[in-house]
Amino acid sequence: MLLSIPKYEYKKRQEDFKTKMRHANCECSIIFSPTNIFYLTGFHFHPTERPMCLFVDPKGGYNLFVPALEHEHAEYYSVIDGVFSYPEYPGLKHPMLHLKDTLENNDFSNKSIGYDSMGYGSPMGYRGPTLDELIDSKSFVSLYGSVEEMRYIKSDNEIELIKESCRWGNLAHSLLQKYTAAGLSEIEVTNKASMEATIAMVETLGPDYTPHGTPTSAFYRGQIGEESAFPHAVTQNKKFKKGDTLVTAALSSVFGYNSELERVMFVEEYTRDQEKYFKHMYEAQEVAFSAIKPGKTYASVEQEVQNYFKEAGVTHLTKHHTGHNIGLLGHEAPFFDLGDETVMEAGMVVTVEPGIYVEKLGGFRHSDTVLITETGMEMLTYYPRNIEALIC
Amino acid sequence: MLLSIPKYEYKKRQEDFKTKMRHANCECSIIFSPTNIFYLTGFHFHPTERPMCLFVDPKGGYNLFVPALEHEHAEYYSVIDGVFSYPEYPGLKHPMLHLKDTLENNDFSNKSIGYDSMGYGSPMGYRGPTLDELIDSKSFVSLYGSVEEMRYIKSDNEIELIKESCRWGNLAHSLLQKYTAAGLSEIEVTNKASMEATIAMVETLGPDYTPHGTPTSAFYRGQIGEESAFPHAVTQNKKFKKGDTLVTAALSSVFGYNSELERVMFVEEYTRDQEKYFKHMYEAQEVAFSAIKPGKTYASVEQEVQNYFKEAGVTHLTKHHTGHNIGLLGHEAPFFDLGDETVMEAGMVVTVEPGIYVEKLGGFRHSDTVLITETGMEMLTYYPRNIEALIC
Repeated sequence: MLLSIPKYEYKKRQEDFKTKMRHANCECSIIFSPTNIFYLTGFHFHPTERPMCLFVDPKGGYNLFVPALEHEHAEYYSVIDGVFSYPEYPGLKHPMLHLKDTLENNDFSNKSIGYDSMGYGSPMGYRGPTLDELIDSKSFVSLYGSVEEMRYIKSDNEIELIKESCRWGNLAHSLLQKYTAAGLSEIEVTNKASMEATIAMVETLGPDYTPHGTPTSAFYRGQIGEESAFPHAVTQNKKFKKGDTLVTAALSSVFGYNSELERVMFVEEYTRDQEKYFKHMYEAQEVAFSAIKPGKTYASVEQEVQNYFKEAGVTHLTKHHTGHNIGLLGHEAPFFDLGDETVMEAGMVVTVEPGIYVEKLGGFRHSDTVLITETGMEMLTYYPRNIEALIC
Repeated sequence: MLLSIPKYEYKKRQEDFKTKMRHANCECSIIFSPTNIFYLTGFHFHPTERPMCLFVDPKGGYNLFVPALEHEHAEYYSVIDGVFSYPEYPGLKHPMLHLKDTLENNDFSNKSIGYDSMGYGSPMGYRGPTLDELIDSKSFVSLYGSVEEMRYIKSDNEIELIKESCRWGNLAHSLLQKYTAAGLSEIEVTNKASMEATIAMVETLGPDYTPHGTPTSAFYRGQIGEESAFPHAVTQNKKFKKGDTLVTAALSSVFGYNSELERVMFVEEYTRDQEKYFKHMYEAQEVAFSAIKPGKTYASVEQEVQNYFKEAGVTHLTKHHTGHNIGLLGHEAPFFDLGDETVMEAGMVVTVEPGIYVEKLGGFRHSDTVLITETGMEMLTYYPRNIEALIC
């Protein structure tokens, strides 16, 4: 059972990124994105007010620059050549001035320097100068999106971790459905289902399991009854009542890899109207599944779904595109969107989640996690999709 | 019992921010920070690939610019004058071009425009142009930090919400201590304690309670046994064993307001060495409490703590500053740090958490949430701090 990314895969990613740097004529580079640092080195950390970055020096070495409180943590858990640290933020000397010294000592002066961002960013009280205010370079070359693009196509190991994630999201969702009942509180049911699934997950996977995120949880994010018509309602601490339309979400993190499972459910019973919109949503998702093929564009899937909605006369009830890539983050590019001409390739993992939203009645959206294959697609989530199976 | 920020307080915040804009000679402004949008309008949303912003038009109206899927949600929950929306990201026309039209229709052209950020930022696959590429202005004026500074001093309502948060963090922490025992799994204990406290919280506070975050949870974030020596270890799915040094964390969110409670605990027993470092940490926290006084600087508190550590001969075992403000985010500026010359004022809410980290033995850090008052400070967290009370 695979529960982490092996060291050789990090080494391969590091070589691949160096190839990207060469193609962009970068002699060295600096990466601030926590997700991309994790992807390239396996170092998972809490970004706070204290700046951190990864830098690839002109000799090709991978190095982390971290605050003192992360120094040993970074050495212990990362696939990395060197770790450098500074005392504290804001400190008597700003961390970015320490970074300047570190970069100069690593031969960054007057080089062509790749970067994903011109500085560290955090809402947690951080302020500081940008790279171009600190370092004399031959040129600064934006590599924004470079690592993200490497993340588009998943390796066999990544797919295995996402499949493991689907398994536990499925359990949490089963328990969510089992415990949901009229008169009960959203938060109580959510917590009970999530806890039981989490404990089963940890007992099953054993000590080698590292979540790098929330092990598993299933919840409603406020999409209960009338408020399910808000696609991204936030928890409102509601009670379930008979006839409510519900939109669920079940997530799970396995070594940082995510899946997404969402279902429309009804409390005890549903009306003809609820059934009508459920069916249109269900059919739209089928249309999307059929449209997923390597070699075609992400936009073409969205176009097919929109054609279906138009024929069904429900376009005015739709509010968002059909899905997005998923992996280390819950939403990743590319998108099933009319404006996204990216071509689908085998190994991409996407969510398929066309939605219909009816004021006063509710929201109608299933979401499944799907692997694009050489011939079409493979469903990674496997929770029942039919209305009969989705009554609480 | 206060469980939300009343509408009049949002109105006051909006007036106060307009005063700040005038002082900075801004005729209008654009704010991208989700936390600051929530602070000024009460609109809580999930930032994704879809850009959102708040803009204050030249007539002084507050407006939200959101994707279609958030339009009704924003109208329903925000203290706001207008809501504008665009179909989708990336879309056939980029959302920022929709924003350009919206701003021009709201008389932004050739004005002096305040901004907190030159564009929307999200790691979730977003890419787009900056404001200065879109709009002809008389000038762009950075207001970065302006709203954040408004958040430094808490109102009576905000303090009441933070006190409510402390109460439930305390319960979660009590249960965490009660359930922690040698041989059990970190994740199981954490989940059980968090769930029970959450259910008690929701039952007690009733339907008016809106978390805008995680209701309450208590956990170890991996700081168990030897790994407690990593101040920001991440969950490693460990089992407790006799003699382990533990560092806990208990959090709670009440209408988005947070508190922080952390304790060193020991499984069943502790050695003389563990006791020695516990005592130094305890005393350092006492030193900090005594040093907190309005009119003095944040740096002065850190200096007192560092003086204590130096006398005790443990400076080489310290890795971070003594604390930070807390409120809508878990970490906020200013910081108890040698480099932070901000002057303490009554109404500021801070964490006090000097730490000692000993390789192979563990981490030693209590964190308490404290209100700075006219005469000194008031402890808002109230969990026992003495070693006798902290054995599992």
